[in-house]
Amino acid sequence: MSTQIYNRVALIGLGLIASSMAHATRRAGLAGEIVGTSRSAETREIAQEIGLCDRIVDTAAEAVEGADLVILCVPVGAMEAVAKEIAPHLAEGATVSDVGSVKKAVIAAIAPHLPPHAQFIPGHPLAGTEHSGPRSGFAELFDNRWTILTPVEGADPQATEKLRSYWEGLGANVDEMEPDHHDLVLAVTSHCPHLIAYTMVGVADDLRRVTDSEVIKYSAAGFRDFTRIAASDPTMWRDVFLNNKEATLEILGRFTEELFALQRAIRTGDGDELFDYFTRTRAIRRGIIEAGQDTDAPNFGRMSKK
Amino acid sequence: MSTQIYNRVALIGLGLIASSMAHATRRAGLAGEIVGTSRSAETREIAQEIGLCDRIVDTAAEAVEGADLVILCVPVGAMEAVAKEIAPHLAEGATVSDVGSVKKAVIAAIAPHLPPHAQFIPGHPLAGTEHSGPRSGFAELFDNRWTILTPVEGADPQATEKLRSYWEGLGANVDEMEPDHHDLVLAVTSHCPHLIAYTMVGVADDLRRVTDSEVIKYSAAGFRDFTRIAASDPTMWRDVFLNNKEATLEILGRFTEELFALQRAIRTGDGDELFDYFTRTRAIRRGIIEAGQDTDAPNFGRMSKK
Repeated sequence: MSTQIYNRVALIGLGLIASSMAHATRRAGLAGEIVGTSRSAETREIAQEIGLCDRIVDTAAEAVEGADLVILCVPVGAMEAVAKEIAPHLAEGATVSDVGSVKKAVIAAIAPHLPPHAQFIPGHPLAGTEHSGPRSGFAELFDNRWTILTPVEGADPQATEKLRSYWEGLGANVDEMEPDHHDLVLAVTSHCPHLIAYTMVGVADDLRRVTDSEVIKYSAAGFRDFTRIAASDPTMWRDVFLNNKEATLEILGRFTEELFALQRAIRTGDGDELFDYFTRTRAIRRGIIEAGQDTDAPNFGRMSKK
Repeated sequence: MSTQIYNRVALIGLGLIASSMAHATRRAGLAGEIVGTSRSAETREIAQEIGLCDRIVDTAAEAVEGADLVILCVPVGAMEAVAKEIAPHLAEGATVSDVGSVKKAVIAAIAPHLPPHAQFIPGHPLAGTEHSGPRSGFAELFDNRWTILTPVEGADPQATEKLRSYWEGLGANVDEMEPDHHDLVLAVTSHCPHLIAYTMVGVADDLRRVTDSEVIKYSAAGFRDFTRIAASDPTMWRDVFLNNKEATLEILGRFTEELFALQRAIRTGDGDELFDYFTRTRAIRRGIIEAGQDTDAPNFGRMSKK
């Protein structure tokens, strides 16, 4: 019984997401062949050495030849150049997708360059770790996480269904959404939390009267979870903010408005307002645990080391 | 070979911290007897039922009788009333400590009420989970975490050493610090991160165009770590902010200043500034992992559920 969905999958860019896709594709036997490429010769060498794909080639143009699924796994800012490069080499009827964290800007960067015979179905797996590079991937990354597809007008529903089955085969739950709405939802659940975490870590690093070693030693008191978020790949996050400007700035505006209200409650000693606010936020947490998107194990099941 | 350090330890308040202290005290055999009490009859009943302490009594006054160590494990706002209640009943030379998250205000609330024969040595274990109540405790909570002692002027160094040994017996690393400095360090590593997390979760909950169920489903993209922080006990956190006003507002001021600078970089499309900022914060993360205060396992070692 074969579960193969595509004959040849081409992964352009071999970072955390692509390398995890390679492992998960193999785990489930979803592709006849996995071809990979990266702009960096060093990355290609590592991928070769660890046998990440069936074949590693030097250019994106080469990689997409004969592939019925092409996934762009490069930073958002590099999508347009790759789209231009691969367009003339795409196989008849190939599905082109991506894993970019923003969708409106990525669609604008990719769609105009693709030939009419290609099926463009943008995607975004909501999964990641603080690590990057071809060695950081693992087959379980997408298990029980969500992947959002944002098909553009005129996309073939059958091609979308096939891509959905592929992501389900990788372990993910799949949703469809309008690109605009995706960018707003992600601004709330991901982009703004990241910017805020980066900011708080930056403030701590900058403070003369509290040493870095104090911040590090006492991080378990809450700060630690911010640092994990703030350790993500800088290139990826720069591109996210430059390309989801509108929604990010809108949510940040709301955030500072609320933060000022709470700051004022602290300054004036309004304990009731603080208590009510802190009580309301507990319910959301419960929902996340019930939805299976986190564990309520103490300390996340982190092991303590003596 | 006995590791007993105190004859009788009295725990006032039986929430997460006190119940974990009870378990850890027993694990290491640090006390001849553990006496516990809580203002709430329901909590006392549960503690009785699960055998949390050797003896559960109805009042704090009763609990401290004959105890050579008394630990106040009540919210910061309740410390003064407890101090007044226990003062006339403290045994000669008893050590009184607490586990409050702020130290300057707690010292001001407790110290004036204690008799001169008591040794007051304020403390703060930097450990917690999102759970509360007498059933939430576990013996490993303090293992390899830090407990900060902030001895006040005139404290007996021998009493401080004994309390330090007790906390080490509970599994913790122990540091000493000036109360002022403690409050500033904690504003950075804990209080401000909590307020910011509460705020972001509040914004998400409030946003009409993004449903709560979307926020919950897609939380793994970064938001999830904020919700854990924002699910902590509302009473405790209200009291923290009301009692560490000065340091919290100072750090929040710095935070909004930096956030505005990053917001401006997004608005003007200054990718270099964003990239540099995001690169700088990675180093702190590495320090935390090297210091053994976190794991770099993907997804914190959370198990994925299919």
